[in-house]
Parts: sequence; structure tokens; C-alpha cells
Amino acid sequence: MNNDSELPINPDDVAAAAQRLAGVAHRTSVFTSRQLDERFGAELFLKAEQFQRGGAFKFRGAYNTVSSLGKGELARGVVAASSGNHAQALAIAAGLAGTAATIFMPQDAPASKRAATEGYGARVIEFDRYADDREAIVREFVEREGLTPVHPYDDPQIMAGAGTSALELLQEAGPLDLLVIPAGGGGQLSGGAVAASSVAEPPRVFGVESAAVGQWGASLAEGRPVRVKVGRTIADGQQLPSPGTRTFTVVKALVEDVVGVEDAQMRTAMRYLFERQKLVTEPSGSSALAAVLAGLIDVKGLRVGVIMSGGNIAVDRFVSLMSQER
Amino acid sequence: MNNDSELPINPDDVAAAAQRLAGVAHRTSVFTSRQLDERFGAELFLKAEQFQRGGAFKFRGAYNTVSSLGKGELARGVVAASSGNHAQALAIAAGLAGTAATIFMPQDAPASKRAATEGYGARVIEFDRYADDREAIVREFVEREGLTPVHPYDDPQIMAGAGTSALELLQEAGPLDLLVIPAGGGGQLSGGAVAASSVAEPPRVFGVESAAVGQWGASLAEGRPVRVKVGRTIADGQQLPSPGTRTFTVVKALVEDVVGVEDAQMRTAMRYLFERQKLVTEPSGSSALAAVLAGLIDVKGLRVGVIMSGGNIAVDRFVSLMSQER
Repeated sequence: MNNDSELPINPDDVAAAAQRLAGVAHRTSVFTSRQLDERFGAELFLKAEQFQRGGAFKFRGAYNTVSSLGKGELARGVVAASSGNHAQALAIAAGLAGTAATIFMPQDAPASKRAATEGYGARVIEFDRYADDREAIVREFVEREGLTPVHPYDDPQIMAGAGTSALELLQEAGPLDLLVIPAGGGGQLSGGAVAASSVAEPPRVFGVESAAVGQWGASLAEGRPVRVKVGRTIADGQQLPSPGTRTFTVVKALVEDVVGVEDAQMRTAMRYLFERQKLVTEPSGSSALAAVLAGLIDVKGLRVGVIMSGGNIAVDRFVSLMSQER
Repeated sequence: MNNDSELPINPDDVAAAAQRLAGVAHRTSVFTSRQLDERFGAELFLKAEQFQRGGAFKFRGAYNTVSSLGKGELARGVVAASSGNHAQALAIAAGLAGTAATIFMPQDAPASKRAATEGYGARVIEFDRYADDREAIVREFVEREGLTPVHPYDDPQIMAGAGTSALELLQEAGPLDLLVIPAGGGGQLSGGAVAASSVAEPPRVFGVESAAVGQWGASLAEGRPVRVKVGRTIADGQQLPSPGTRTFTVVKALVEDVVGVEDAQMRTAMRYLFERQKLVTEPSGSSALAAVLAGLIDVKGLRVGVIMSGGNIAVDRFVSLMSQER
């Protein structure tokens, strides 16, 4: 294990984020299930980040970031490129912090996502995801307009904010043996691993990614962030070609392994959560539980925290995904 | 308004039920939504009984009843005829109280419901819903075997137990102007109305039924429980030909009105709860919110409690219902 002092964030950063988020972010519920515990011979604690503001854990990092900005930065505003949960989270956070958010969104993003983001008060600018270079567009816009870019995951403030979900889970559930966290860019996984490292008896931490992408598995095997071909998957929240460099540093140091789940395993977890827990999750949001349900992580005899990272899925898409399953 | 002392239950009965249920039933969450409040110019408090044990409010009445039984009754067991949430609730409650539950279930009941009921430890006996007289079968069984019948709604203990959901909502949300409760047999509506009548400034109470059935509207118009032709509706939890006699007495005395919602209005509410609140509700469980969303009850400027009574719906049925909507 690396020397934690060299990591981009430390437990104090997560604790500071928790203070900034107190009374602003929802302290989301933790669900337990006797039936699930009996089935696995374990004690499972499911953290419901679908109940977070904006419907996903992303608000934690976004608000931690914008609430740390100086007056000048707030006056100029923030910007990000995202068609997903980060866009809505940043729009809400910016509104609360009294600053303006500009979101670059692919022109083929779902109308509902665009409407939601605008509904939270953000300005949306379209780009062509096939012709335009998203990073270059944002960079140029930042240089020209002086806005502060807010990266969706590879940023210390974002990571520290995202880590507060695991911190709350540890506070609520008590000592855990395992902590299982979905991994896309790695913000929540890295932040959660740092939060977990600070408790008296730290749990082992696992990440869960989409097996159809596998950016974490490939990168951990190489010992450095590598770029993979992004496969088709229902887990749009985890469809990224490579881990962040900062998040990777933390994950390499503190996370035992990142396992990959198949789409069908996420569908099974979504169905289970719907029918037994009465909870809506989007595919990536169900991935950590999917790994447990599929037996990819051995939980027998253990106290296990599992994060459900988000629930932003339209009924029509859910219907389509569940109709394909059988 | 009638003299409350003549009613089958009084607020003390609901308070006593709350004591029996403490630490056994889930004290279910209350959800709020800024977006919903802005849309209606109101303050809405949504009580999530889909998170109750067994997935619906029914556990409250079932446990209140079985936990009040004497030793001899517990030794002989309890019996009910139900294919729905009452069956599962009674099975769980009986297990907790250390007694045996026998459930008469129509032979065409969904296999999943039968499996769930048996999974909770109940004995299931099939009957033919078209050929057999359900009431007569249970009565005969009770006489022969000495079991205690547990009616799904028209029983003082069931009504008092079911009323604890409204009691908790009033405790959590503080003073309310309106309380909106789904109405099937009327257990939760009558119990909730009695609970509401006990607070310092009682809210006005509305029931919501399936417009395709309309047993409450017809009965209130006549001033006595009448039998209606049961129309087709997606709200299987509310598909009853007449109110209970005891529940009707309470509702007539304490409830301002029972309004009917169309299936399409329940679908809209189910979709809203799924997409915005990340919550699963069955059709009848969404009916109270459906009445508010459809503008059937004027909530402007008011503090309004709404009970979501249950979430027992298979994914495949949800998919089918949502596919019909558009």
C-alpha cells in the first residue's frame, strides 16, 4: 500500500466536505433486508444515493466544489461538459451557491436531461459529440469567458465531496468488513476509499465497473491509467475510456480490486431493487449490488456496505431495459 | 358530524396500536419535493408505506391484531382469504407473533404472490374464485379448525393498526391542513381519520378510490354501504364491491369526501414517483397522490399529507402498465 500522504486527498478533506454539505445535501437512507441477509449469510447495508438531490451522488462533489469558490470565481460562473448526472448536480449546486452554471451537452442528449438541467437554472450549450472535441471546447470557453471548469470526477474537491456518501454509510452502519462502490470516473470510489481508510477498523474496499468497458481492470493490471475501447453497455454512467489520473492514484493505493459486472447482472439488480426494496436505480447505480448478487464478491459472514449511486432513469428506458431481459 | 364516541375505534385505539407496533413495524420515511411544492403552491408530505414490512401498510393492522390475541388463539392460528397485500402482511405478522397463518388464495393468483406468502411461513390453500364463496369457505374452516379469522379491513384492531401510518405522518410533518389517503376496504382511511381527529388542529381528510369501482362515492351518496358493480381497473388493491360496515361508519363521520381517480391518473402518479422520487408504487398505492396531481383536490396554499399505501408490483406488470400509457 502506498504512503497515503502522497494521495490527492486525505480523510480531513472528506470530513471538511461533510461539513460543507451538512444541511444542504440529503443524508440519504440506508436500507437493510432480512431476506437478502439470509440469502447471503451476511449483513448488507444499502446506501440510497438515488435520494440525493439531483437523483445521484454527484451533487455531493459538485456542491463541495462550488461552495469552496472565491467571490470572483462565483461572479464569473462554472462550466462543465456532461450529458449525465454531473450536469444536473452542478446546475443545482451552482444555483445554491449563487453562481451561474454553463453546461455543454451533446446535441443528441435526451431532451429530458436537457430540460432537467435547464430547469435547475443552468445554461445549456450544445456540441456535436462526433465532430467536436469536448475537452477543447470547454478549455477554449474557459479561456475566453473566465469561467471555472468543474471536472465530473478527477478533481480533489469532487472526490472529497463524493466520498461523503461512504463516510455517512460508515457512520450509520457501524464497522464494516467490506465497502462496495460503483466506479465510473472514480470520484465516489476514490473519495469513499479515503473516507474508509480513516475509521478505526477500515473495511476492505471494492469498486465495481461495467465489464463491457473495463477501464479500471485494465488500468489496475497495467499499474497506470490506460485507455480502453468503450464497449456497449446499459451503464451509461460508467461508459468512460479511462479512469481519472487522480482517482486512479487513490484507487491503486486503497482499493482491493475493481470487478466488472455484465449488463444482465445489473438488470437483475435493478429488478431486485424495484420488486423487493421498492427503489429505482439506473444501471450504473445498481452495479455495486449487482456484483454482490452475482456472487462476484464473497460477502459470507461479513458486514457489507453497498452504495446505490443513482436513480436517474426514465420510465420508458426502464421499460425497454426490463423488456430485453427475458 | 356524528358523535365520535359511537365510532368503532377512537384515537386511544390508534395510540395503543402505535405502541404495539413500535420497534416491529417500520416507521416509514416521509418524502418532500421542492419541485412538487412549487408546482402546486403547497407543502406536500408523502408517506412511503411501500417501505413497510411486506411492502404495504397492511402489516400495521395485521400485527396489531395478532399481537393482541390470547394464548389459546395463538396456539390455534389465524386465517384469512386474500390474494393481495393482506395475505403477506398476515403471514409476516403471524410469524412474528409465534402463530400459524392459513391463507385462502384464489387458484389463479399470481405465483409470485403465493410464493411470497409461503416464503413468510404461511400455509396457502387454493380456492376457485369463480365457483367458491370465499366468505363461506373461511367461515366453515374457522368453525371446523378453531382458527381466528383476520379480516383485511373491517375490524377495529385492523383499522386502529392501519391508522398508525397517518399518526406517524402527522407526528413527522407537523400540523396539516389536508390528509389524503387511499381507500379500498377503508381500513387505512378510517384509522387515519380517527388518528387525525385527535390532534390539536385536525386536518380535513379525503379518501381516494378507483373511479372504475366507486364503492365509496356510491355509498356516501346513499348514506350507507352499498354494493356496486366492480369495474375493470389497474388498482387491484381497491377492487372491492363495497366499503366495510365499520370502516364506512367512521368515514361517513370523519372524512370530508372520497374522490375517484382514473387508471390513467394513477399511471401518471406512478410514473412521477418513479422518475422524480425514485419510488415504486403499485396502482392503488399511488391513488392518493394521483388525485392531487390531477387537481381533484385543491391543495393550493395548504400543508398536505399524502399516503403512498404500497409498492407490491412485479416489474413485468409495471412494464405492461407503463407500455399502455402512451
